[in-house]
Amino acid sequence: MPKCLVILSGGQDSTTCLAIASQQFDEVHAVTFEYGQRHAIELESADAVARTLSVTSHEVIKLGAILKGTSPLVSKYPVSTYTTPDEVPDGVAATFVPSRNALFLTIASNRAIALECSTIFTGVSQTDYSGYPDCRRDFIDSLEETLSLANWGTIGHLKIETPLMYLSKAESVLLAKAVLGDRFEEVMELTHTCYQGVKGGCGKCAACLLRDQGFKEANVVDPIWKFRG
Amino acid sequence: MPKCLVILSGGQDSTTCLAIASQQFDEVHAVTFEYGQRHAIELESADAVARTLSVTSHEVIKLGAILKGTSPLVSKYPVSTYTTPDEVPDGVAATFVPSRNALFLTIASNRAIALECSTIFTGVSQTDYSGYPDCRRDFIDSLEETLSLANWGTIGHLKIETPLMYLSKAESVLLAKAVLGDRFEEVMELTHTCYQGVKGGCGKCAACLLRDQGFKEANVVDPIWKFRG
Repeated sequence: MPKCLVILSGGQDSTTCLAIASQQFDEVHAVTFEYGQRHAIELESADAVARTLSVTSHEVIKLGAILKGTSPLVSKYPVSTYTTPDEVPDGVAATFVPSRNALFLTIASNRAIALECSTIFTGVSQTDYSGYPDCRRDFIDSLEETLSLANWGTIGHLKIETPLMYLSKAESVLLAKAVLGDRFEEVMELTHTCYQGVKGGCGKCAACLLRDQGFKEANVVDPIWKFRG
Repeated sequence: MPKCLVILSGGQDSTTCLAIASQQFDEVHAVTFEYGQRHAIELESADAVARTLSVTSHEVIKLGAILKGTSPLVSKYPVSTYTTPDEVPDGVAATFVPSRNALFLTIASNRAIALECSTIFTGVSQTDYSGYPDCRRDFIDSLEETLSLANWGTIGHLKIETPLMYLSKAESVLLAKAVLGDRFEEVMELTHTCYQGVKGGCGKCAACLLRDQGFKEANVVDPIWKFRG
């Protein structure tokens, strides 16, 4: 029976991945990481999404503040705000946390083995925004090989699938709509994206600007807008 | 100024690596992982070794019991005992914890970046015992590449050095003696290897049998023997 483990942050992309996995696999498990991130609202979103999509199991793995860095997501540095997506600087994002996705996927591989899942889904994408080196497929390919070597002799090849890797944000919105159908609004209104932890989104951080642009280009109303002040 | 981060478990091999790093680098930092392992004595050994070898910093990273598996090191399954090293079964060790070294090295890479260390030392070895797939150089090579991709654009290439990789246990003992010189006994008596958590070693688990064999072949008296009942 094919089983899948989904890394669920409670954001738009990981929620879309969970919806896709629910269609493709007989059994879907979710893991969420509590790593001292600035906003508990992310964890509340993940919990609500996991319940609504009726996963077989959902584990919140409590790591505490084990990752160091200058990213506002794990430190007291302020989150930058902008007026348009074009203003967000090129290069590595100020919000990047060194080795974060490698850490999450490595722990996920341990859980996938324990749960007998042969596939891990993660919502990373390299299309619209290249500020996160650990959201690129070349990193994922390398990690997939590394984790298979790390556990050589105990499991077959552990696949890390990235269904959104080559989609624009607008395409991801349309894919979520296609997969969720009638449940699109019910599920998407539970998600959280804003780096500032504002319910409904601040509309000014890089994450909100990118989400807003994606929904706009897709010509879809974002259900979280109802919460925006 | 070249700096090194050493993964220090408090065992014989990581202690030898720390001694080597102390000779080769201007600044040496150590990290130890508390991951719900069976015996606190490991952490006490790591602390004592780090103090005795005067590292610049020593951090115990508290992960709690985040790794699942059937290994006696992280579960309630009993540790197997044997009479000779030849009795230890071939294949993946019963004590293997899926993705453990990948996890430790990934977190270490985050710390290496924060501390501006370009090199990580780890005491893994593939020579005498092949029961741990994540102690092989092909895994380390792959992970080194993965972590560089994960942090691409933020750091140069992060090197993971494994000074003991191709040494037998006996050769490791002789290397530690050469590097530590007059301090060999003072430092080595602080180390802990036994899977059963017995100070001085139970002499019957796979880890003790391998350590004992190494010292015997090297014709060196193991300083921990003074504690053995």
